[in-house]
Amino acid sequence: MLDGQPRTRAELIELSGLARSTVAGRMDALLGADLLQPGGQSRSTGGRPPTTFVFNPLARLVLAADFGVSHGRAALTDLHARVLHEEVAELDIADGPEATLGWLLEAADRLLASAGRERADLAGVGIGLPGPVEHETGRAVKPPIMPGWDGFPVGDWVRERIGAPVLVDNDVNLMALGEHSVVYPHVEHLVFVKISTGIGAGIISGRQLHRGAQGSAGDLGHVQSPRGGDVQCSCGNTGCLEAIAGARAIAHELDRTQLRGADASRFVREQLVRGDRQAVAAIRRAGRDIGEVLASCVNLLNPSVVVLGGALALSGDASLLVGVREVIYARSLPLATGELSVVPSQTGEHAGVIGAATMAVQQFLHPRSVDALLQQTAQQVSPAGAGRA
Amino acid sequence: MLDGQPRTRAELIELSGLARSTVAGRMDALLGADLLQPGGQSRSTGGRPPTTFVFNPLARLVLAADFGVSHGRAALTDLHARVLHEEVAELDIADGPEATLGWLLEAADRLLASAGRERADLAGVGIGLPGPVEHETGRAVKPPIMPGWDGFPVGDWVRERIGAPVLVDNDVNLMALGEHSVVYPHVEHLVFVKISTGIGAGIISGRQLHRGAQGSAGDLGHVQSPRGGDVQCSCGNTGCLEAIAGARAIAHELDRTQLRGADASRFVREQLVRGDRQAVAAIRRAGRDIGEVLASCVNLLNPSVVVLGGALALSGDASLLVGVREVIYARSLPLATGELSVVPSQTGEHAGVIGAATMAVQQFLHPRSVDALLQQTAQQVSPAGAGRA
Repeated sequence: MLDGQPRTRAELIELSGLARSTVAGRMDALLGADLLQPGGQSRSTGGRPPTTFVFNPLARLVLAADFGVSHGRAALTDLHARVLHEEVAELDIADGPEATLGWLLEAADRLLASAGRERADLAGVGIGLPGPVEHETGRAVKPPIMPGWDGFPVGDWVRERIGAPVLVDNDVNLMALGEHSVVYPHVEHLVFVKISTGIGAGIISGRQLHRGAQGSAGDLGHVQSPRGGDVQCSCGNTGCLEAIAGARAIAHELDRTQLRGADASRFVREQLVRGDRQAVAAIRRAGRDIGEVLASCVNLLNPSVVVLGGALALSGDASLLVGVREVIYARSLPLATGELSVVPSQTGEHAGVIGAATMAVQQFLHPRSVDALLQQTAQQVSPAGAGRA
Repeated sequence: MLDGQPRTRAELIELSGLARSTVAGRMDALLGADLLQPGGQSRSTGGRPPTTFVFNPLARLVLAADFGVSHGRAALTDLHARVLHEEVAELDIADGPEATLGWLLEAADRLLASAGRERADLAGVGIGLPGPVEHETGRAVKPPIMPGWDGFPVGDWVRERIGAPVLVDNDVNLMALGEHSVVYPHVEHLVFVKISTGIGAGIISGRQLHRGAQGSAGDLGHVQSPRGGDVQCSCGNTGCLEAIAGARAIAHELDRTQLRGADASRFVREQLVRGDRQAVAAIRRAGRDIGEVLASCVNLLNPSVVVLGGALALSGDASLLVGVREVIYARSLPLATGELSVVPSQTGEHAGVIGAATMAVQQFLHPRSVDALLQQTAQQVSPAGAGRA
């Protein structure tokens, strides 16, 4: 249905394998909520042609947010997670949750006004944060670069104010989800690597996001790098990948030792955009360091696609990608690299919001949610009015 | 149903969420094939108590095989993957597929005879091989230690001779499946590490085996070890974990440079069993090397259980486990290790056959298979004879 193909009631029963009455109930709910619309008549081999139905992606909207250390991006999307309107702001995540999420609520109202819609039209909200998140409860968990956020109930706080279901995850998981759903929907196993101030990965295993037992899966940044030695990392350990290949380490190599967090990332990216030779050499070596760790990752997970995203991967300079490829293809097993693509992100700066929207849409269109909708709309819409084919 | 609880027809309809007619059809198929048996009457709140049904795990049997470099284990199990009869033989996998699988066919007939059953009673066959396997086609793919097996259609060859569906996978994947299904059925994310001549891992992600795009996921043995340096590995690369922490490397340290493959593994294990101090020190260091690579694995996957199995982990000496734990808890992120267990295998030498049986049972009891059964038995059994509650 979500593929945009008009389908008849009989086709839906066959495709779903569900009982006729279950399909009828769900279709009534979807029709009552405008999620399904009659889509004209299908060709028939004889007799009265049956009515078809199409999914209406604009019936409800989704608010998606992607927060970095120093920016916020809010987007209003349709139920295909396509961005309709968006707003980007410079902000400091260290100002704490209420200031940051307060901006999101204001941005949401401006975006809804642009679209001529209301908060009641929101099917859900998806939020990405640059740190560990307990996905089940929507709380930030000891995020190292987000002072004031530890344990804050992000999901509940936004839900109480906006009146729609809210899901929260870390930014890299959502980038993986966004890139996968838009560019690689049929790929089973994919790894998305964000390379910026921090280095992290989002893992798609069997077309599902692999969050791990505590939601901390994908932490590449604090894997020991072969070249890491005893370089001190902000996490307390030594020799971590992030400590030698993150934006701060590169800025340090370029004699900008004072630059921290987002400033380091911005500086390195600017140098790459202007083609500074020292910066290009440094990012190529960072690429090789990241490649060493990704080679293990490829041996372990055997994905068919590795996507590079994040500020340093989106500079337009290919040296990072070249460095990564150089090592992965040399170090990983032939069986694992034979059909492996290592490519830059195509969703680019939108990966995060598209992923946040996808997460919210997946929950909203889950059969359980549709059944709940059925109970809601049963009181408002008469089944007869929803039309039987 | 498989939990052994008797259930009524109404309960099954509610639990499955499937149409009444779908459930009735599947139940008729299962009753016709003796997979389901009437299990007495349930308590009722009034009126005639409805009949309950229980799963019959002995209706059909499974042949499970686990091949190592120098041994074969064949087991006959019930549909709960419980071993009923088994046979172990010393054999050389390098003798090639026809000799090795020929032994399996003979063993199968002996095991069936012990159980008083026939080949026609087999619901399926599961086979584990000590090398890369293309799971979809059941072929061995460039297995480094299995001369003569490359591209051999293991699944087809056995199926044609035994007349039951055959699934093939690599040994470590099946050990992970076996340990997970018996000991940790409710754990979402688990990593099983086999430590013997080779070192490899089987990954359970979201309760499913993660095989990867080409089925080569879990290859820990050829991940670069921090201490690996330029030690030559049999794979052609240098510094691989297996080259410094596999049985052959340890035998080499114990001045048995001539020992290869299974002989090295057997020798090291014997030294550990007798408490040889040099062997104990060497295995502890191997444990730390394995721990370094597993620490990355824990950061990446955030499992809640890491299981150590394989000949060197089952020697009874805890030094390997101690070495592994030492490094994982020091190197992985606190969020990922907070609730992490690193434990020895409980299914031990049976992990492989239990996993092979589990794989075959999962396919046999898949709804698609049951629907096929329905079409088969519809010709033999009248629906009325199958009894309606």
